[in-house]
Amino acid sequence: MNINLINIGDELLIGQVVNTNASWMAAYLNDNGMRVKRVFTIADNADEIKLTLQEALKSTDAVIITGGLGPTKDDITKHTLCEFFGSTLVLHEASLENVQQIFSKRNYPMTSLNEAQALVPACCQVLINKWGTAPGMWFEKDGKVVVSLPGVPAEMQGLMHEEVVPLLCKRFGVESIYHKNIWTFGIGESFLSDKIEQWELSLPKNIHLAYLPKDGMVRLRLSAYGDNKIRLEKQVTDEVKKLQTLVGEYIFGYDEDTLESIVGQLLAKQRKTLVTAESCTGGNIARLLTSVSGASAYYIGGIVAYANEAKEQHLGVLHSTLEQYGAVSQQTAEEMARGARERFGADYAVATTGIAGPDGGTLEKPVGTVWIAVAEEQGVEARCFSFGDGRERVVRRASYQALRWLQTKLLS
Amino acid sequence: MNINLINIGDELLIGQVVNTNASWMAAYLNDNGMRVKRVFTIADNADEIKLTLQEALKSTDAVIITGGLGPTKDDITKHTLCEFFGSTLVLHEASLENVQQIFSKRNYPMTSLNEAQALVPACCQVLINKWGTAPGMWFEKDGKVVVSLPGVPAEMQGLMHEEVVPLLCKRFGVESIYHKNIWTFGIGESFLSDKIEQWELSLPKNIHLAYLPKDGMVRLRLSAYGDNKIRLEKQVTDEVKKLQTLVGEYIFGYDEDTLESIVGQLLAKQRKTLVTAESCTGGNIARLLTSVSGASAYYIGGIVAYANEAKEQHLGVLHSTLEQYGAVSQQTAEEMARGARERFGADYAVATTGIAGPDGGTLEKPVGTVWIAVAEEQGVEARCFSFGDGRERVVRRASYQALRWLQTKLLS
Repeated sequence: MNINLINIGDELLIGQVVNTNASWMAAYLNDNGMRVKRVFTIADNADEIKLTLQEALKSTDAVIITGGLGPTKDDITKHTLCEFFGSTLVLHEASLENVQQIFSKRNYPMTSLNEAQALVPACCQVLINKWGTAPGMWFEKDGKVVVSLPGVPAEMQGLMHEEVVPLLCKRFGVESIYHKNIWTFGIGESFLSDKIEQWELSLPKNIHLAYLPKDGMVRLRLSAYGDNKIRLEKQVTDEVKKLQTLVGEYIFGYDEDTLESIVGQLLAKQRKTLVTAESCTGGNIARLLTSVSGASAYYIGGIVAYANEAKEQHLGVLHSTLEQYGAVSQQTAEEMARGARERFGADYAVATTGIAGPDGGTLEKPVGTVWIAVAEEQGVEARCFSFGDGRERVVRRASYQALRWLQTKLLS
Repeated sequence: MNINLINIGDELLIGQVVNTNASWMAAYLNDNGMRVKRVFTIADNADEIKLTLQEALKSTDAVIITGGLGPTKDDITKHTLCEFFGSTLVLHEASLENVQQIFSKRNYPMTSLNEAQALVPACCQVLINKWGTAPGMWFEKDGKVVVSLPGVPAEMQGLMHEEVVPLLCKRFGVESIYHKNIWTFGIGESFLSDKIEQWELSLPKNIHLAYLPKDGMVRLRLSAYGDNKIRLEKQVTDEVKKLQTLVGEYIFGYDEDTLESIVGQLLAKQRKTLVTAESCTGGNIARLLTSVSGASAYYIGGIVAYANEAKEQHLGVLHSTLEQYGAVSQQTAEEMARGARERFGADYAVATTGIAGPDGGTLEKPVGTVWIAVAEEQGVEARCFSFGDGRERVVRRASYQALRWLQTKLLS
């Protein structure tokens, strides 16, 4: 079944607040077999609300509205819906009790503005809001459903979870969806597309493929629609197996995996430790690794060796190496990795040295040139990469490349 | 003038990607005197695109579309627009050169899919995309404007900045706006609002104030609307002076300033050097400092001392200190800062040690507890902060707090 969302709020239209309600709701509805067709983001304005609601009802079975239910004057959704459905506001006793309870719990005095929150259109079914003072509302008209929810994320989420989604599933007898994400690294969107073209063309009609590129990765998302969740899962698993034979060498993970979490899991499992020696990535690899809860089990720490003296003093890079080959060189990268590994007593060390830009590039070593080295017991290895322009982008790409290389080492 | 936005992408409708393009565009258009009336988020589907575009054109002067311009099969915006405007696709030479240049620079071979990106509807004005391969397109019909942009944020932003907004301003004769951002740190939105209430109420009618809170900072944005840009600038400057007398102690910068750039400027100006010794912030302070181009002039490097052994071995924290007071303590923070300053031979060192969570909190030291220390020639000082829940949030807040403290030291 199809749903349209209407998110109401001036703050969304001047870019002060990112519309995370829309993405949360879309994901949650999707996980429950419902499809969001469109999201309308509109102003706190009665005419806009009526016009959009009319438009949104045309093409779907249900419309969910968020926002505009607060006690202040600029929140006008409830009055507008009352007018839209030709109803009048009546006091809802259970909602009044709910508001009173919340205020007595917080030890705040109630004002008439707060009491007015328990007024609802006579024609709606009230969805009690246990997380706040504005009740949710469920309307039906001409076989279609309109739901109005508060815009506060926790309240909206609570109501979606306990009231709206169960009611929608019951009301519309909903189809299942199964999603699978396949994460690839080191291959561009168009090359990937070329390699899997035949497979893509032969996908069953009920499976949809999407390409989602970011930071040198391309995420492939398979979405299967049907009656039987278990059959969908099997169908998708079969397709993923075919995909693995075609581009397995580029796949680094699935679903919630990230390079930093995968590297962490491998290190933890093999009881190995890691240290970092970063120049151009300036601490970003360390930050990624430590963003994973529990990283202290395998990540010892590292050196951010931004100045040459720091490379010499804290990583043991030879002065002569820096003089002869420069800071951005195979030799320096290797000595950084080797030095970090030995000085911290770790199993693995990863090192980066390069030119993030915008200044510092030369004809021989243009901006984006990065040497990455990995040291392990068996020795040290370094490779040169070109990550193009954009300081932040170079840092991100170099960091992910380093993690991807580490993953490969840990798997081999 | 009014604009509607259409963001195309299946990933937006299943909630896998948050629609940050919409909020960025809304904020940027707003900053330039244009008003976003509605945002439509829709699927990669030709019928949907045509239907929504028709609807969106009804109520506004211009419509900006993002997404669906990539080289792969699920990107269909261009073909749909071609049909919508009754045009045919033709090869655009300058765009082809642009695609070729990008590929040769990255040393990638081009495929026919990539070449096809230089095909554009004959009736459009091409907006050259310097940041990627898909060109932007500008259509005019019945006095209204339709712009199509790639969905990749950096490409969309580059095109908005250099092409779309200047063209829209010229085409529709938009009123002048002058903006000034005032960055505050260490005071909550509601306390700030209380302190500046009288000033806010007495602002001239043509000046609008917005509060933009993030990561412990509140950005105040003054926007003045009128005919004469020079008069607007003077008006705003006068108001900022009044603001400085009210809350000057919380202001750390203006407009494009960031804490990392301000700290960098102060260090460079005073010819002082800085090192970092990070435990719970895991390299994030280093990353922030090195995100500023030219950081090598004052930032030497640092240690990410995640494990206790790293704190002892590389920063000289005493084993007895760790045993007696624990890693998250005033003593450890002080020894980390002092050790880093001495070992790297820097003027300043900043250290962090704390509990980012979600695990590791105790009754005495709950999640969010962070000790920050700053060492300088005169000695070392440490302070304890509580940054609440959320691993990433704790790391960000602790990092900014450390930089703000450094700024205060450098200014005193």
